[in-house]
Amino acid sequence: MLPDHLSATFSALADPTRRAILARLASGQASVTELANPFEMSLPAISKHLKVLERAGLITRGREAQWRPCRLRAGPLKDAADWLEHYRRFWEQSFDRLDDYLHELKRKGKRHGR
Amino acid sequence: MLPDHLSATFSALADPTRRAILARLASGQASVTELANPFEMSLPAISKHLKVLERAGLITRGREAQWRPCRLRAGPLKDAADWLEHYRRFWEQSFDRLDDYLHELKRKGKRHGR
Repeated sequence: MLPDHLSATFSALADPTRRAILARLASGQASVTELANPFEMSLPAISKHLKVLERAGLITRGREAQWRPCRLRAGPLKDAADWLEHYRRFWEQSFDRLDDYLHELKRKGKRHGR
Repeated sequence: MLPDHLSATFSALADPTRRAILARLASGQASVTELANPFEMSLPAISKHLKVLERAGLITRGREAQWRPCRLRAGPLKDAADWLEHYRRFWEQSFDRLDDYLHELKRKGKRHGR
């Protein structure tokens, strides 16, 4: 575990290719070649992304010499979700305010016979 | 909104000082000086972090010339939480497995009279 594992997690997630790799692994383990297929990317480029994900503890890799399947590890995702959870009341408040505003618009529309 | 706003959000969150700034703003708006106080950091260093947060849409800044209070904007945090939510079943599964394992240990312990 890195000293600041939350930063490592968020940093690993800050890339669309790495998020797509995790989405692929959510449907089951895969080899580097299988992971590289859907992307127009070289194997070394994919390997670099996998190293970032592995360092952040978001994937593990099998120890079999040739076929080293990658697997999703969800623990760090839970920690990131737990951190975000503290802010839920803020986004729920803003949606409440938007909802109030839409109701107000509707009410005014009715009053003006629109 | 940036073309890949999720990457901008995760990248902005990948720093303990920026997360601490958001935590401070969760208890109310604050000026740059107020935000800089708890950190042993220069105002320019804090300003740099605020720019990253502002570009990611995680804070807004008042337009008053001298006192430009920073405020939390939770929308991007919701998007990040929504993305993570897709992986919930994975971390819940792993906790279920851990729970099964602990039960199994307990059961074995009882059987051996420990």
